[in-house]
Amino acid sequence: MLPVEVILNKRNGKVLDSEEIEFFIDGYVNGSILDYQAAALLMAIFFRGMTDEETADLTMTMVNSGDRVDLSAIEGIKVDKHSTGGVGDTTTLVLAPLVAAAGLPVAKMSGRGLGHTGGTLDKLESIPGVRVDLTQEEFIRQVREIGIAVIGQTGKLAPADKKLYALRDVTGTIDSIPLIATSIMSKKIAAGSDAILLDVKMGNGAFMKNEEDARELARLMVNIGSLVDRKVMAVLTNMDQPLGSHIGNTLEVKEAIEILRGEHVGSPLYEVSLTLGGYLVFMGEAASSYEEGRQLLEKLLQEGKGKEKFRQLIEAQGGNPEVVDDTSLLPQARQEVEILSRKAGFVTSFDTHKIGMASLILGAGRAKKGDKIDPAVGMVVKKRIGDEVERGEPLATIYGNDTGKIKLATEMFLEAIEIKNEEPDIPPLIIGTVKQDKLIMRL
Amino acid sequence: MLPVEVILNKRNGKVLDSEEIEFFIDGYVNGSILDYQAAALLMAIFFRGMTDEETADLTMTMVNSGDRVDLSAIEGIKVDKHSTGGVGDTTTLVLAPLVAAAGLPVAKMSGRGLGHTGGTLDKLESIPGVRVDLTQEEFIRQVREIGIAVIGQTGKLAPADKKLYALRDVTGTIDSIPLIATSIMSKKIAAGSDAILLDVKMGNGAFMKNEEDARELARLMVNIGSLVDRKVMAVLTNMDQPLGSHIGNTLEVKEAIEILRGEHVGSPLYEVSLTLGGYLVFMGEAASSYEEGRQLLEKLLQEGKGKEKFRQLIEAQGGNPEVVDDTSLLPQARQEVEILSRKAGFVTSFDTHKIGMASLILGAGRAKKGDKIDPAVGMVVKKRIGDEVERGEPLATIYGNDTGKIKLATEMFLEAIEIKNEEPDIPPLIIGTVKQDKLIMRL
Repeated sequence: MLPVEVILNKRNGKVLDSEEIEFFIDGYVNGSILDYQAAALLMAIFFRGMTDEETADLTMTMVNSGDRVDLSAIEGIKVDKHSTGGVGDTTTLVLAPLVAAAGLPVAKMSGRGLGHTGGTLDKLESIPGVRVDLTQEEFIRQVREIGIAVIGQTGKLAPADKKLYALRDVTGTIDSIPLIATSIMSKKIAAGSDAILLDVKMGNGAFMKNEEDARELARLMVNIGSLVDRKVMAVLTNMDQPLGSHIGNTLEVKEAIEILRGEHVGSPLYEVSLTLGGYLVFMGEAASSYEEGRQLLEKLLQEGKGKEKFRQLIEAQGGNPEVVDDTSLLPQARQEVEILSRKAGFVTSFDTHKIGMASLILGAGRAKKGDKIDPAVGMVVKKRIGDEVERGEPLATIYGNDTGKIKLATEMFLEAIEIKNEEPDIPPLIIGTVKQDKLIMRL
Repeated sequence: MLPVEVILNKRNGKVLDSEEIEFFIDGYVNGSILDYQAAALLMAIFFRGMTDEETADLTMTMVNSGDRVDLSAIEGIKVDKHSTGGVGDTTTLVLAPLVAAAGLPVAKMSGRGLGHTGGTLDKLESIPGVRVDLTQEEFIRQVREIGIAVIGQTGKLAPADKKLYALRDVTGTIDSIPLIATSIMSKKIAAGSDAILLDVKMGNGAFMKNEEDARELARLMVNIGSLVDRKVMAVLTNMDQPLGSHIGNTLEVKEAIEILRGEHVGSPLYEVSLTLGGYLVFMGEAASSYEEGRQLLEKLLQEGKGKEKFRQLIEAQGGNPEVVDDTSLLPQARQEVEILSRKAGFVTSFDTHKIGMASLILGAGRAKKGDKIDPAVGMVVKKRIGDEVERGEPLATIYGNDTGKIKLATEMFLEAIEIKNEEPDIPPLIIGTVKQDKLIMRL
């Protein structure tokens, strides 16, 4: 087999078989197939797409290119959750303690963020003292002892994906649904959980801008699960406005803690976190239906069990557990600036991506790998689509450490919010679910 | 401008402007843009195509990436001919001496062949003593003195094309009509002639398998000529069977000499050579119409002027001129084997590509760059489509130097010729011409 034959087959619309995919990907990882041939194949995939079987084969080839986390020392069904990413999207910090409190082992490997804010790891690290660099043994022991641990992804999971992703970034082949699906699924499968819940975000603050693409990505990832015998389901959620009101690392920790303390009941972040959590509890077989799972989590929340679990997590990973009762112990920005509305009317839309960019400019995120994050900065958005606004009323509060950046972020925020006279339709928060039709998951 | 932006623009169906094309190609040649980004762009071009303006911009960017041959020291209109390549296609050896005899300066840069037989250079070198490595000064002087010279292409013409072609070869992006057109046109324009005649071959022994693709390639190259102010026209000719009856380096020289001596009048090689020659004489303004140009060449041929010019060419370039009177002075193969027909009927088709491969196996061509050619080997095909054949009648003669290779070539030849009971339609030899509609060329 020659690399160029595989490229030509894909280019000409043929379906690649598993031998061709393995030959090409293994060759790319071991260096016998070079970047330019992989680039040509990726662009051919962009135009021709892939069948579900091809994506499943590619996913497993990428899983097999590296290590797989062995969670067998932890009893019970290990569940994992992945979000395709959005603004003010901190559901993990809410649902992970709750799900652990429900008795499901949460052995979570998270990534660092690239974009408007940090990832779950960066948010946790913004709590004074918390470390996420546990060894594999510490990680397993902690899950066995307190039911929850969160660490960084090791570099050896799906190295083929890492190499291909870097190439996609510079060859204009990022936004291919089969390639996105295989990239996500290979990392999640290598991370060793038994069941995977996918939160596929959709809207102008998400990677998938429209419902058709989001549904296709969800369908494909769920079907990859079926083809490789993993329990997988997806929830489609709206990202046409920030999910939580708080955007920025410690700010998001604060909002999560407040929800775990019983505040913000029914808020969008509460609602999506409890929905995802309800499905996780059901997938982990700690409840016999989604509804039962969700009720369990609501009860645990009211009893303060989620807050207690979060306290245990922070303490176990070296942080100051008192933050759950006193969020002023979190790092604070030096400046707070209110953004006032320049006109009256209804909030009709957000350019959510631009709001993310404003928080990036403040220092909450990374423009490129290795950039340092400022944990304290960000913003709290006080209005949502459909809210009525008076002239001069606060729309948001900016938290920053640099006057120039605050000015820039304020201007961007004002450009990103649209206020009009007519009352808008309010986009639904939970758009739907995609479940496996094979009975891998008993839904 | 970032390279990935150019890739994305092409991928998304936008038309690239000349700045984007120059930025990318110049960057690729100077090494600031790497192979993998060029590979992604090439594959995007394969799928999206290019407008005529884009191909013209790409052609001129590739021309400007290297040297241009300066033929200004030679008086008169310098004409050049390019064939897209076929089997038994030795028109240059027939028409170049005739056109030179008609008074047009022939300053020909030729390539070495990669494939079933050698190129014009290899054929000329099969004449004992001939050298093709003249200096630029010797080349110009010889054209001024005897009106004709043939040398190898310098490595510095269109280096961007050379680099891109090597990349296309390993990334599955050879067969893109805009990329083929720019590759041919950039080299021809850099070679310095005033007018370019293109012989676009069409059929199962050619790169273009069907008339639609051949017409599109011809149209595009002629239009590139219009857009960059060069006289260009194309003749579409059939390649569903070998053009000349002789295939192989000295064998083709022999057939060309025989035609120049007045033999094979009306044979397909005679016919295509005189047609192309007639257009060349007209494009070079040595005749006021194609018909007049062709009549002039027929007259010169009958008077032996083409043969004399060929003799002068061989002598000037160090070869033994006596070969034009005695072709037995050319290298001879040690073995001659007749291939006899195993059945009776009509020759209905050839797999012309396979016949080319049979001659490659005998040693007449190069499988890869740098392979050594055996000048004496090849075959003479005695039948054409439509000819009636008796059982046991000779179909071809194989000339070889290795019994195993001769056996293999014989089997391939027999697989490549189809003999049936019903009389077939005979494909037309000259399919049509494509001319410029702007009055760059007064046709």
